[in-house]
Amino acid sequence: MKRYFLLIFTLVVLTLSAQGQFAPSVSSPDITKDGTVTFRVKAPGADTVRLIIDSRLDTLMKRQGNETWSITLRGLEPDLYMYFFLVDGMKVLDNENAHTLRDVKSVMNTFVLDPKGDCPMANHDVPHGEVRAVWYDSPTLGTTRRMMIYLPPGYELSRQKYPVFYLLHGSGGDETVWLEQGRTAQILDNLIAEGKAEPMIVVMPNGNIDEQAASNMSALGNVQPTFAHKHWMDGAFEESFKDIMNWVDNNYRTRPAKRYRAIAGLSMGGYHSLYISANQPEDFAYVGLFSPAINRMDQGKSKIYDDLEAKLITQFKQRPKLYWMGIGEKDFLYKDNAEFRKMLDKNRLRYTYHESGAGHEWANWRDYLVIFTQQLFK
Amino acid sequence: MKRYFLLIFTLVVLTLSAQGQFAPSVSSPDITKDGTVTFRVKAPGADTVRLIIDSRLDTLMKRQGNETWSITLRGLEPDLYMYFFLVDGMKVLDNENAHTLRDVKSVMNTFVLDPKGDCPMANHDVPHGEVRAVWYDSPTLGTTRRMMIYLPPGYELSRQKYPVFYLLHGSGGDETVWLEQGRTAQILDNLIAEGKAEPMIVVMPNGNIDEQAASNMSALGNVQPTFAHKHWMDGAFEESFKDIMNWVDNNYRTRPAKRYRAIAGLSMGGYHSLYISANQPEDFAYVGLFSPAINRMDQGKSKIYDDLEAKLITQFKQRPKLYWMGIGEKDFLYKDNAEFRKMLDKNRLRYTYHESGAGHEWANWRDYLVIFTQQLFK
Repeated sequence: MKRYFLLIFTLVVLTLSAQGQFAPSVSSPDITKDGTVTFRVKAPGADTVRLIIDSRLDTLMKRQGNETWSITLRGLEPDLYMYFFLVDGMKVLDNENAHTLRDVKSVMNTFVLDPKGDCPMANHDVPHGEVRAVWYDSPTLGTTRRMMIYLPPGYELSRQKYPVFYLLHGSGGDETVWLEQGRTAQILDNLIAEGKAEPMIVVMPNGNIDEQAASNMSALGNVQPTFAHKHWMDGAFEESFKDIMNWVDNNYRTRPAKRYRAIAGLSMGGYHSLYISANQPEDFAYVGLFSPAINRMDQGKSKIYDDLEAKLITQFKQRPKLYWMGIGEKDFLYKDNAEFRKMLDKNRLRYTYHESGAGHEWANWRDYLVIFTQQLFK
Repeated sequence: MKRYFLLIFTLVVLTLSAQGQFAPSVSSPDITKDGTVTFRVKAPGADTVRLIIDSRLDTLMKRQGNETWSITLRGLEPDLYMYFFLVDGMKVLDNENAHTLRDVKSVMNTFVLDPKGDCPMANHDVPHGEVRAVWYDSPTLGTTRRMMIYLPPGYELSRQKYPVFYLLHGSGGDETVWLEQGRTAQILDNLIAEGKAEPMIVVMPNGNIDEQAASNMSALGNVQPTFAHKHWMDGAFEESFKDIMNWVDNNYRTRPAKRYRAIAGLSMGGYHSLYISANQPEDFAYVGLFSPAINRMDQGKSKIYDDLEAKLITQFKQRPKLYWMGIGEKDFLYKDNAEFRKMLDKNRLRYTYHESGAGHEWANWRDYLVIFTQQLFK
């Protein structure tokens, strides 16, 4: 036994010394059963230390003793949180928390607040779906591309066919972001386990056709994630979308019919969902526009974007089962969305509208996913 | 078009302002075609800034102008690198590099150096295998557990059966680490594309039986990755290993026979591989011990660990096709491994031995994976 402890000790010391973290550590984030969260960071020489929680909070921390800064927060909503520290203006991660996520180019620490054990974004001990990173052929784009697939619990062992939900990311995102910040696997696992959502396949493609995959999987070398794509909302992704649908229908036990297909996306992905479903009115019974980047200035860029109003009238004549829109009251796209709704209203096209607090952010999009998926395929 | 640029601008500004990163940024890491790497970090008020590259380098950076610190490195080997900065002793990540990996509890930036385009750890434009995160039932442990599966390119479309390589992580690791730091998918994709490795299924389970999955997937809430597991090299993982093999043979098109099965692991995973293969001499034709945590003090903890010498003699009588050992000359386990080899030599048990530079680290384990997989199933 002695040698075991020596081995553990050596491994720990090697790791800590490689990190320059020999100093006794603090506990952070410290989460109590009632959902109180205390953040602590060691910054002996600092003048100011701030805590930034995604777009929700930016606050000063208080010095405690010689080295440690801390702050305690109460009453946070159950959800996934992303945060970092600013030590005299320099971004510093929480070394006590190994869990991080990336938002476009910014890496932050993360934790999930689930004091009552009922947050749909949290990991629960329920049957889990399978997550696959696959490469599909796109004949339209002439390349192979990466996408993520969620298969519901039991898919492997059943012979059942399943409905398919296509879920699209926003500008700056990639095929991984709905699983990472979006918590799609956790949300679907939890809602399916509670009987609140139907078992479904969720397909998360990469909407940036300049890239074959997320930047850390790129054959171009050390490229960074970016908002700035050459092909950006120019119709090319929408035009190649049937390649994805064909590949999915050929490779999975799907129900390849309109009433068993949904499409939704956030921001740019909402824009993609709007135009893909309007151009393919025979394909999607369920459409979800989450804070969609609606823009009526794109006529002429691609035939995909021409005559939207007429296309929507045709689409709605075929009665989608659900046309769902959600946006935050502080979203910078609020006005564009209001104008779009006015146009739908003028044409008496019936949609479901959900207005939430906050702005253009993941807290909303996770909520929208929870709300939207419960209405699918019923 | 104007509104598009306004939209992009707004998105970028929102992101940057949320990060407190309005100051003009530097370029880092700056990698030239010949493999020169320049690191830069802004730290206006700092007295010293150090660059730490995994266990390979710890060096001072030089002040350039008022704000920026930099250092240029030449002659680094093609490989995956992990690094961070120490600004007056405080760990700071490279904000210009969105790519990070976690080593047990420490998050670091990462990049791949591939100046000639032939590094097997790099993403190349070759046919890609599929990576799955699956949950399997372990009747022995009475729970479901998560593991990662690599399927070779073409698996989905073929009706072929494939050999299976079980690849085990070390202490402090989990089911994700061979894909993340280990670059298993890249290495297999590249070696298979070049005809250097046979197409094979790679199975990466979680060797910590206290947990069902990596800590960020744990239903226990915000738990951190750790070396300190209650069940640690006590035989329980080895005893439940047939649950994994059965699940894989039942769910994939495998060739369920000894000559089509390999097992290997690093450190604790090498120890697991040693004992699993010694206790199941009928199951594995290929065994790889990568810097194995060999320890002869474990007799009596579990029958799995009893009578190793006799078990090995039985195992080698059945002539494994390859019994491969690799270790770095500076590894703290070097002496234990030398003693183990002496025991094998005394019994005239034939193995392949590979001694490399450096110590107990991922640069070695990625190399060992490249060497070992090329010798499998031929």
